[in-house]
Amino acid sequence: MKNVNLRAYLAEFVGTLILVFMGTGCATVYSSSVAGILGTSLAFGLALASIYYGFGKISGGHVNPAVSIAMYFDGRMSLKDLIFYIISQILGALAGSGLLFAILKNVPKATITTLGLGQNGYDAASAINIGVTGAIITEIILTCIFVLTVLGATKNERYKNVAGIAIGGALTLVHLLGYSITGTSVNPARSLAPALVLKMVGVSTALNQVWVFIAGPVLGSLIAVFLFKVFTYKKED
Amino acid sequence: MKNVNLRAYLAEFVGTLILVFMGTGCATVYSSSVAGILGTSLAFGLALASIYYGFGKISGGHVNPAVSIAMYFDGRMSLKDLIFYIISQILGALAGSGLLFAILKNVPKATITTLGLGQNGYDAASAINIGVTGAIITEIILTCIFVLTVLGATKNERYKNVAGIAIGGALTLVHLLGYSITGTSVNPARSLAPALVLKMVGVSTALNQVWVFIAGPVLGSLIAVFLFKVFTYKKED
Amino acid sequence: MKNVNLRAYLAEFVGTLILVFMGTGCATVYSSSVAGILGTSLAFGLALASIYYGFGKISGGHVNPAVSIAMYFDGRMSLKDLIFYIISQILGALAGSGLLFAILKNVPKATITTLGLGQNGYDAASAINIGVTGAIITEIILTCIFVLTVLGATKNERYKNVAGIAIGGALTLVHLLGYSITGTSVNPARSLAPALVLKMVGVSTALNQVWVFIAGPVLGSLIAVFLFKVFTYKKED
Amino acid sequence: MKNVNLRAYLAEFVGTLILVFMGTGCATVYSSSVAGILGTSLAFGLALASIYYGFGKISGGHVNPAVSIAMYFDGRMSLKDLIFYIISQILGALAGSGLLFAILKNVPKATITTLGLGQNGYDAASAINIGVTGAIITEIILTCIFVLTVLGATKNERYKNVAGIAIGGALTLVHLLGYSITGTSVNPARSLAPALVLKMVGVSTALNQVWVFIAGPVLGSLIAVFLFKVFTYKKED
Repeated sequence: MKNVNLRAYLAEFVGTLILVFMGTGCATVYSSSVAGILGTSLAFGLALASIYYGFGKISGGHVNPAVSIAMYFDGRMSLKDLIFYIISQILGALAGSGLLFAILKNVPKATITTLGLGQNGYDAASAINIGVTGAIITEIILTCIFVLTVLGATKNERYKNVAGIAIGGALTLVHLLGYSITGTSVNPARSLAPALVLKMVGVSTALNQVWVFIAGPVLGSLIAVFLFKVFTYKKED
Repeated sequence: MKNVNLRAYLAEFVGTLILVFMGTGCATVYSSSVAGILGTSLAFGLALASIYYGFGKISGGHVNPAVSIAMYFDGRMSLKDLIFYIISQILGALAGSGLLFAILKNVPKATITTLGLGQNGYDAASAINIGVTGAIITEIILTCIFVLTVLGATKNERYKNVAGIAIGGALTLVHLLGYSITGTSVNPARSLAPALVLKMVGVSTALNQVWVFIAGPVLGSLIAVFLFKVFTYKKED
Repeated sequence: MKNVNLRAYLAEFVGTLILVFMGTGCATVYSSSVAGILGTSLAFGLALASIYYGFGKISGGHVNPAVSIAMYFDGRMSLKDLIFYIISQILGALAGSGLLFAILKNVPKATITTLGLGQNGYDAASAINIGVTGAIITEIILTCIFVLTVLGATKNERYKNVAGIAIGGALTLVHLLGYSITGTSVNPARSLAPALVLKMVGVSTALNQVWVFIAGPVLGSLIAVFLFKVFTYKKED
Repeated sequence: MKNVNLRAYLAEFVGTLILVFMGTGCATVYSSSVAGILGTSLAFGLALASIYYGFGKISGGHVNPAVSIAMYFDGRMSLKDLIFYIISQILGALAGSGLLFAILKNVPKATITTLGLGQNGYDAASAINIGVTGAIITEIILTCIFVLTVLGATKNERYKNVAGIAIGGALTLVHLLGYSITGTSVNPARSLAPALVLKMVGVSTALNQVWVFIAGPVLGSLIAVFLFKVFTYKKED
């Protein structure tokens, strides 16, 4: 039993590493052209789908504290597991960002210290200069949409075989719109990791703004759970 | 029983809000480059798929009066539900457009009042300057194709698990072609909402033209139902 | 019984109309930028998938004489049906091209008479100036790949629910490579229709070259059937 | 029995031919714009999915020595089959590269001898000038992610119908990030073939560097098998 959970924590670590390495890797490599946004959005979605079909059934393939929080409040995991999942996700995200930095630091160094590692941001750090209020509202809405799809697609036995496509598609979706606004977080671990790595090389904007990308996704996730409970309440009638 | 329907109306409200916020949001944020059209087309399709897998089974995930009309004439819903579905969809679309406007109005304000909120149009409001007749014929054809796929994919039990991908793909398809012609409506609620919000800020072209994007989709939907009945009639032999 | 087949012929007519209208419509509307190629390739694939899920089970959703020929030689349809399928497909393709021309002729008229209606070609009519031999070999290979996927995805009961995605994906695939070479036919009806419509407005290159896009796909289809029989022969052991 | 295996080797030959012809064909035809990277990434993924649904069940549709090595160490194939699979894959890849060269050599000849045939590379042969260490680490990570998805998606009976989409999506994913870094190998046969064809026309850089694209994918595959065994070990508890 204990073994099973250790394996789940390892799966969350590896999965979040993959998500952050591939997704923020594309955000770093591509320019912020519209085609680059399409590529980065697809990369985040395909990374999540690949994790789901590769080893998602070990841990559920959350790879995102906002998803784990929703699963906890929907009664699908224990508080202890929630805590260890979030720790594993943050460590995995850090490993992914660190690995990305290690590979790319000597290549386009100027790019990383000026343009960064796929971090999220608002004001001057947003492509459209969104303010802090707009950024947090955007993250709440996008996370709510994403988490609603995750909750529905993974609860219904009928969708188990296509759930990876559904949740990957939803993650691509929220990046298609959000990339130009905040860079799209919807995932506190994914935002924290590049912010910490950039801080180590002396760039602190992302870390100063990261609270928005923790608070927004958590609030959006809670609203999604509430809506989902309203939608599915009738079963208890 | 009454509760069930209230939940369905809420699902249609939330779903149409999501569809309009994400789809017309991408149309607003992206330039009208070909890559921007790809991104917007994908966003509409992925939004519909995300709604389907997230909470589509509560209401069927129509989020479109043209789809609900087709379902009514195919005998899958009551007239009362049809009316309340359409009301919920229009209110949801308005909420989505309003939310989008509230987030973006202070950011690229000039963009919204000049380029708009992802509204549909013809003549000078069409990228290729299509006339009113061409616009209405285009909307009839595109809606007919989209609704045929929705009718077929959701009627067949075998396709229930992939129906969200099929109908999302069909919505992406009609945007890929129609975006340059009319902006692609195929959904009266999706066209009415940005037209009304733009009217409030003094831009009335979209509202003046919106009858085309109500009449076209409704006619296309009726043709789709007729064709679908011809195709599936044999079961009653 | 007779009714069933009439319905199948109608389904092939409507389906090929949709495929040609949407696919060659995108080829006409988009510039031949790489993003435009992506959009056109996606449109062909999504059109085929939409047809499959909408009403594909009425006729099998071939919408392509090369596919019907393969189905005939794989023993899945009668010679009489093969003939009527091909007639229905050609008529449907003509209706699709004609409709497209009617909608767009007064809009960017110069575009249609100079750049065309999504027709196929070689030599100066090819983006990379491929010669006639290269064009026919390319069409043979691309059709063989596409038809192999159609044969396999539709024969296996397990894949019935995802077959529309698989065959749509294969059609997108052959356009991604072939668009720059021949414009990608893999479908004689899809090539014949714009060639005939363009001939009516005095542009005869496409019609003069159309034999390549009939012979190539037919040969590719026959090779695919042969390979498929070799692959699946063991069942008769 | 012996017949069955011959058929499997033929399937691996044909499949690898298709993968290399379509994937490296797109890399050759498209410019290295971001849209071109999207097109090439989609082509590799859709080619793998098309092979899977067309005739994947004959041989498993590995079309990649790194995948076959992982299958061998996961106990799903014999050593004899592993050897013959790899031989078939290399011959198929050579046929695919040779065919591509034959079709395109007289068309944009300068392009092929200067820009190549979709080969992989590092240093000056990498779009971002990655060094040899960065290249090998990138290939290890990308192959590990890809092979993990292949192992998981094909082992679970529930995913059999969507596995082609899952593994195709994973191959697209690793190209989205890796294309700018090494051109993405994750497949020794796919790298060896263009390197040998280019050597024949006097361009030897790719062949000199090809060891990286053999060693990297093989190491990544072994790590993936190890991780997969850790994740799935509990079944033997």
